[in-house]
Amino acid sequence: MVDILHKVGIKSSSLADASKALTTIEGLSGWWTTDTKGDAGAGGVIQFRFPPGGFDMKVEKVEPAHVLWRVVEGPEDWVGTTIDWTLKQDGEYVVVLFKHQGWREPTESMHHCSTKWGVFMLSLKALLETGKGAPSPNDVKIDNWN
Amino acid sequence: MVDILHKVGIKSSSLADASKALTTIEGLSGWWTTDTKGDAGAGGVIQFRFPPGGFDMKVEKVEPAHVLWRVVEGPEDWVGTTIDWTLKQDGEYVVVLFKHQGWREPTESMHHCSTKWGVFMLSLKALLETGKGAPSPNDVKIDNWN
Repeated sequence: MVDILHKVGIKSSSLADASKALTTIEGLSGWWTTDTKGDAGAGGVIQFRFPPGGFDMKVEKVEPAHVLWRVVEGPEDWVGTTIDWTLKQDGEYVVVLFKHQGWREPTESMHHCSTKWGVFMLSLKALLETGKGAPSPNDVKIDNWN
Repeated sequence: MVDILHKVGIKSSSLADASKALTTIEGLSGWWTTDTKGDAGAGGVIQFRFPPGGFDMKVEKVEPAHVLWRVVEGPEDWVGTTIDWTLKQDGEYVVVLFKHQGWREPTESMHHCSTKWGVFMLSLKALLETGKGAPSPNDVKIDNWN
């Protein structure tokens, strides 16, 4: 089992404000994909859609400093994996620690998703610092898979 | 043991040209850090320096499609880890698969380095596609650690 890890720091003194980007449909639409629907509350399912497909995530935990999703529908290598967000205030920054856990194999797909998650973490940072992220379909393209 | 994985695709039909960005001091200076010195040939040691410190890497393999470095000096959590680059032509792209292997713990430092490697992979892509990367000290800052 191998994990994807990332970290960004958002210049902000409000962990609660940063948290909204992970716990509301409006927030999520602002940095990951504009086509986000569903219920971002505890026990809800969020539908994230991209031009080639998407993911359904069950919200297993939703606290200001900790959010946990489980992938219930999507590509085979994603189903059953979990996405874990931890937030903490560190001086002038809200630090976001990200873990996408439960990958079964370190495939080329996992390499792609790791870099792509990094790009979206920077989109999250931009949204919270400037009011404007770069969600799909206007996300930064990284390779032949986009 | 946990790994950092990344992938970028460079719009190029020349794997040999892309490879130069990993196998020459000039190439490495163009996307990772402008302060790169040493011997990038097989058995050589490359010194990568950044404002807070740096890494010495022993070049264990240097082929056009495969480069392997071992960290011989640097922060404690980096020493002994390996950095593995595989290149392949895939249609209009040279695909670069990256693995930083041998991390002992999934620390906050590892989260930071994972995102930062993603940023530098995009700098490598930019260098090869546009002629201009974003190496340190003009790299994209991601958090309270820079």
